Amino acid sequence: MTATTTADLLALDRVAQDLLFRAARTANTFTDEPVTDAQVAAIHDLIRYGPTAYNGQPLRVLLLRSAAARARLLPYVSSSNRAKTASAPLTAILAADVDFHQRLPELYPHRPQARDWLADRAARVEQARFNATLQIGYLIVGVRAAGLAAGPMAGFDTAGVQREFFPDGRHEVLLLLNLGHPDLGAPHDRLPRLDTGEVIRTLDEPG
Amino acid sequence: MTATTTADLLALDRVAQDLLFRAARTANTFTDEPVTDAQVAAIHDLIRYGPTAYNGQPLRVLLLRSAAARARLLPYVSSSNRAKTASAPLTAILAADVDFHQRLPELYPHRPQARDWLADRAARVEQARFNATLQIGYLIVGVRAAGLAAGPMAGFDTAGVQREFFPDGRHEVLLLLNLGHPDLGAPHDRLPRLDTGEVIRTLDEPG
Repeated sequence: MTATTTADLLALDRVAQDLLFRAARTANTFTDEPVTDAQVAAIHDLIRYGPTAYNGQPLRVLLLRSAAARARLLPYVSSSNRAKTASAPLTAILAADVDFHQRLPELYPHRPQARDWLADRAARVEQARFNATLQIGYLIVGVRAAGLAAGPMAGFDTAGVQREFFPDGRHEVLLLLNLGHPDLGAPHDRLPRLDTGEVIRTLDEPG
Repeated sequence: MTATTTADLLALDRVAQDLLFRAARTANTFTDEPVTDAQVAAIHDLIRYGPTAYNGQPLRVLLLRSAAARARLLPYVSSSNRAKTASAPLTAILAADVDFHQRLPELYPHRPQARDWLADRAARVEQARFNATLQIGYLIVGVRAAGLAAGPMAGFDTAGVQREFFPDGRHEVLLLLNLGHPDLGAPHDRLPRLDTGEVIRTLDEPG
């Protein structure tokens, strides 16, 4: 018998809560066990159902598996991120497709004119970045759903990575993500999280 | 006996996969059943463990529950979003705290100087927006984990909502989110999703 906790108020079972959030940790070191293409496809097949504006799904993922592919990335990565990026079984470059709107007649068929609402590139870049970032949130959850650990990294030369890997000029690089089976032992205790009262408030009515 | 599918490659059980992604739908209409403060706290207590850069956790949530609170929002909402925002049991304004860095000595204690790395406001706004958007991805998953449906809405006057609800100038409003128990029946069939091969590719080595 355990006391009722906030976890009991959720429909999601406790094992899944732990897998995705409570016990999951960002990983900096990984075992040698590979992350297979089938696992990556399974993660995508789950998280692709997460919602995006106009169902636009702007996230694009470039996987770097081989040492040769990784070697092209390392010069752009901050020194503190280099060793883990070199040794992770798989590294993903996460980017937004700024021309995602070209697919809207197919992805948002009840309003095919949505493509034309997004004719302005500057507005579209903002939309692409925002919705691809939402999808990165789903993706991090999805990596954990596969029993893997994710290691997101923001410390890199974004413009350099964009030139090196997306010379077409139609993608905005957002984040790097290492994936793998976490090595035993987290590097430090879990960092403190804000309390609900510090994050969420209810608007008071005028009296 | 069913055929092996990509779903079987995940550690997350099928019921949870359906609850969070495969069967979950964005809701436009809700039942009258309220969303309680305890449910909101339970959702936050789950998703607050999702990772953010520097553990900065910039997402802030303002809940509008009463008709009077909702009435202050409606003038800023696009006409197509007005009815559902007026009738949802709970509407949340999701924003990024641009001054999240002030908490870093406490939230990122092993590198308290991270606060000073973020002294430049423009760089901080970008960080705050990006990481709060990641957290919105976790939040949408968390709403579903509570057995509720989420209705994210981007169609509103962002500057107007910011002035009306965050006059302090330290928050960037990102998205509106209706929460509730979904009314029976989705409004339309699920929209098509991109195939894995359209979203994810592996970098080919130079030959």
